[in-house]
Amino acid sequence: MSAPRVVALGGGHGLAASLQSLRHLTEEITAVVTVADDGGSSGRLRNEFGILPPGDLRMALAALCEDTAWGHQWSAVLQHRLGGNGELAGHALGNLLIMSLWELLDSPVGGLDLVGKLLNTRGRVLPMCEVPLDIEATVVGADPAAPDEITVVQGQSLVAKTPGRVINVRIVPESPTASQPAVEAIKLADWVILGPGSWFTSVMPHLLVPDIQEAIVHTPARRILTLNVGLDDDETQGFSPAEHVEVLSAHAPDLTLDFVIADPAVVRSEEKALREVAQGVGAELIVSPVRKMRRPREHDTLRLAAAYRDVIIGG
Amino acid sequence: MSAPRVVALGGGHGLAASLQSLRHLTEEITAVVTVADDGGSSGRLRNEFGILPPGDLRMALAALCEDTAWGHQWSAVLQHRLGGNGELAGHALGNLLIMSLWELLDSPVGGLDLVGKLLNTRGRVLPMCEVPLDIEATVVGADPAAPDEITVVQGQSLVAKTPGRVINVRIVPESPTASQPAVEAIKLADWVILGPGSWFTSVMPHLLVPDIQEAIVHTPARRILTLNVGLDDDETQGFSPAEHVEVLSAHAPDLTLDFVIADPAVVRSEEKALREVAQGVGAELIVSPVRKMRRPREHDTLRLAAAYRDVIIGG
Repeated sequence: MSAPRVVALGGGHGLAASLQSLRHLTEEITAVVTVADDGGSSGRLRNEFGILPPGDLRMALAALCEDTAWGHQWSAVLQHRLGGNGELAGHALGNLLIMSLWELLDSPVGGLDLVGKLLNTRGRVLPMCEVPLDIEATVVGADPAAPDEITVVQGQSLVAKTPGRVINVRIVPESPTASQPAVEAIKLADWVILGPGSWFTSVMPHLLVPDIQEAIVHTPARRILTLNVGLDDDETQGFSPAEHVEVLSAHAPDLTLDFVIADPAVVRSEEKALREVAQGVGAELIVSPVRKMRRPREHDTLRLAAAYRDVIIGG
Repeated sequence: MSAPRVVALGGGHGLAASLQSLRHLTEEITAVVTVADDGGSSGRLRNEFGILPPGDLRMALAALCEDTAWGHQWSAVLQHRLGGNGELAGHALGNLLIMSLWELLDSPVGGLDLVGKLLNTRGRVLPMCEVPLDIEATVVGADPAAPDEITVVQGQSLVAKTPGRVINVRIVPESPTASQPAVEAIKLADWVILGPGSWFTSVMPHLLVPDIQEAIVHTPARRILTLNVGLDDDETQGFSPAEHVEVLSAHAPDLTLDFVIADPAVVRSEEKALREVAQGVGAELIVSPVRKMRRPREHDTLRLAAAYRDVIIGG
């Protein structure tokens, strides 16, 4: 049996955890990464140079680096943040490297492929679009002093931190062209995995790019949704596990899923409601322990690998 | 016959040209690089982080990169300067990479060796000292309005541009500890090459580090001095070819040489004087065309390789 072709969509730490898990199962991995970050080192580079925010792409590349001294050493170098208090402080070296390659090669995908060669990555990292996007959310109670007021919050870093309840999320521009290699990878995949990650700002943006949503909806691949282990981050505070699935489904009504993976500590007494909502989009609920013992708000990459293996290859 | 072990000392474009030439002859190359630069990207990084100025080290590494698509591609990336008009503009990516490795590894030599592995360099690049130095020169007529006045000019970038006549150059601190791997390389070499390069700020600083001067004076290796092809840069304006040798000798009275290589266009009518000065330090004068046809103020790396070959291996 040939190795399963897996496409994992997301951004940030959640996608990195998913990729590290998948490396235990296959080398046929494509990461498709959000490009709406506007904070930190990525935001500063994006503002100054008008480039794609490189940070989530860098993290995905580091997660797929070759498991050798060479791979780990260069991964550490790419993840290294410059010190000091001056103009360079806080920039991840890998962000500057990726930006330099984009300037030299004039190709977002070509530059990422070259970093992939440096790290000898197991798989490929692609942006979901080749132009930077912004995220905009309609929020109830963004200002705690006015809990019933509906406002619009703009920018990924602000949406991620909003204390209100997000009722709708959009990307700007509304219908960007998707990265064609990303669309192709989804169409040719055996498995497509959404999440974990910041729900509105890393997981759902993929469904808001028309060509990406269409590819996910129509691919012959089977679809897995991986729920977060820390469900109550700022942007989804007060959302139950079932509501996580519902809000995703509301933004992509034609999407069906095959499996929803959730940790028992997240499911708790709400297993019945979650199972019903999952079944409503065609999915079987897989309750499997995927948290770290000592940092229970993070996915344990070996336990998540085991959950993926149970689903993808068999227990 | 095993490949000759060659140590080339210098800095900047002159050293890079020498290294590119030597690559045609041997893979046993050690570059020993000045660490007094205080201008440009290197100067900014040195000021902000207190590190060795990385620029000349980066150029030497790029000059020794593997002659393959991989080597050339990463060499171009390291040499790439960030664009824009903001805080990052003008920094060479390789300088930031070297700085990150120094932060991560806490070892100047270890960090450079790792970049050498990335580029698969033919040889090794070492700093002459592992702490940054400053250059100070006594100059006659630094202010063109007062042509007879003697002043002290401080900092490599100012000394390199001074319109006056340098009569003496020093390093600050006066007796820094040399890099031990550099001293070892000189002691074990078959050939030691000084120059080309900015005479007072890239070539002579090596002779001002006591341990390096002593190693050069006492090594069993044979010693070559390569004169510049553009002799009349700011810092040596008005110095004849013979005076270039004399001023070097004045700063290292015990130094003897085996060969002085000079281009015929530089020697011109002064061959007799230059030959006599060379003989005074024990050296045979080799007059050999080593300039580029179209940019006669630069060394042609193939012609310089031919001159080195004639001396080191035989014509």
